[in-house]
Amino acid sequence: MATKKKDKPIILITNDDGITAPGIRNLVEAVKDLGKVVVVAPDKPQSGMGHAITIGHPLRMHKVDIFGDTEAWQTTGTPVDCVKLAVDKILRRKPDLCLSGINHGANHSINVIYSGTMSAAMEASIESIPSIGFSLLDYSVEADFTASRFYIKKIVSALLQQKMDKHLLLNVNIPAVGLDLIKGVKVCRQAYAKYEEDFTERKDPHGKKYYWLTGEFINFDKGKDTDVWALQHNYISVVPVQFDLTNYTLKKQLEQKNLFK
Amino acid sequence: MATKKKDKPIILITNDDGITAPGIRNLVEAVKDLGKVVVVAPDKPQSGMGHAITIGHPLRMHKVDIFGDTEAWQTTGTPVDCVKLAVDKILRRKPDLCLSGINHGANHSINVIYSGTMSAAMEASIESIPSIGFSLLDYSVEADFTASRFYIKKIVSALLQQKMDKHLLLNVNIPAVGLDLIKGVKVCRQAYAKYEEDFTERKDPHGKKYYWLTGEFINFDKGKDTDVWALQHNYISVVPVQFDLTNYTLKKQLEQKNLFK
Repeated sequence: MATKKKDKPIILITNDDGITAPGIRNLVEAVKDLGKVVVVAPDKPQSGMGHAITIGHPLRMHKVDIFGDTEAWQTTGTPVDCVKLAVDKILRRKPDLCLSGINHGANHSINVIYSGTMSAAMEASIESIPSIGFSLLDYSVEADFTASRFYIKKIVSALLQQKMDKHLLLNVNIPAVGLDLIKGVKVCRQAYAKYEEDFTERKDPHGKKYYWLTGEFINFDKGKDTDVWALQHNYISVVPVQFDLTNYTLKKQLEQKNLFK
Repeated sequence: MATKKKDKPIILITNDDGITAPGIRNLVEAVKDLGKVVVVAPDKPQSGMGHAITIGHPLRMHKVDIFGDTEAWQTTGTPVDCVKLAVDKILRRKPDLCLSGINHGANHSINVIYSGTMSAAMEASIESIPSIGFSLLDYSVEADFTASRFYIKKIVSALLQQKMDKHLLLNVNIPAVGLDLIKGVKVCRQAYAKYEEDFTERKDPHGKKYYWLTGEFINFDKGKDTDVWALQHNYISVVPVQFDLTNYTLKKQLEQKNLFK
């Protein structure tokens, strides 16, 4: 990719923790020298929104001045709405790259499906915009993003030097350890893991029951090529993701069985 | 599968249009003779919720008596929440099969990613419950579900005769035509199609802008093995779906390039 100023790549940044979260600020800091950065992010936390879009009520957006020289907009929508609004109403063109995060908390294994961070990145990929979601395995608002910033800059720089597939979509998770302890970057597959739900039942002051969703993360997948394994061993995990959900193995089986004729 | 009454399969039914939608009533009617049906569905429409879960506020659920002999519960949660609540708090076991729908409107091609109907089915599949989402290509509340009921009974009966993979997940779409015009059932792959967004901009009475998400569906995929093709030719489309989103082709390419070292 050319390096002349006028050819700077346009980098759209969004997240699901909301525009004021430390994670998105650290993402902007990490890549602001690599292109022209524009932030379009939700005005409030949207964790667990998955690929939700807003169709039942209208959206609003406002320009905000919280990232110094970097243009930024907050919207009332979901992370996916933010990508759509950015392309159609703010940039009025496709950015060269979309980055989502840095999420406060893991989005490895099955979390890719629930994650607003990854859904925003997937939306960009569907729109033919190469895209990466970043997550740090630390829920704290006081998390240390030093290692994240270092490796994010490295990963984004490497990709900007390449001709990227227009649907390129990466799920990058970063272990919550110091820069000196990170062993490197590992390309992985998504581990088969899930949450064992355990709703916490409570009663309101009027004696009526309500439930909080809680759950324990369980990894069923012992493979050493998974994101969970890589993170447990202090690697940064990079899982290439696709939006064609067809199960081709099952497709073949069903065709052979000819069940529905 | 055994046919003795005590061995009747337990069929969990949910949807994303809400428990009072005609689609879910027709789904219950279609399969109530095939097992013990329990309905757990949202108390309001949840279209476009994708794989959203409710973590920021608690959930409530209430037993309702609107399906005759069939046990039914409405919850304040998303379709995915409904599956979790059903397994953990209502059935207190895994059902033998989970059915979601009948959605009022298409969930073919890329819609699988935005669809609350399919996300509920995917959640069940992650939980090792074979699962099917059904959608009729007719948004009307007065849609004719005759052909849907006929083919849904046929498909579910066929699967209940089989040993199903515990992660079996099917996305079934039904064309909005009469039973006599349907040519049969076709196992397909997900078409590559997307929405070209076009936000409708309006001004509120105070002069401030707001935006409605609208968009035009565009099919880029000319393959005759896709769900869009099948539906256009009056077939019922069955796309086997998976929740491993790893792009193995891109994984191999990235490993070969060794970009991030």
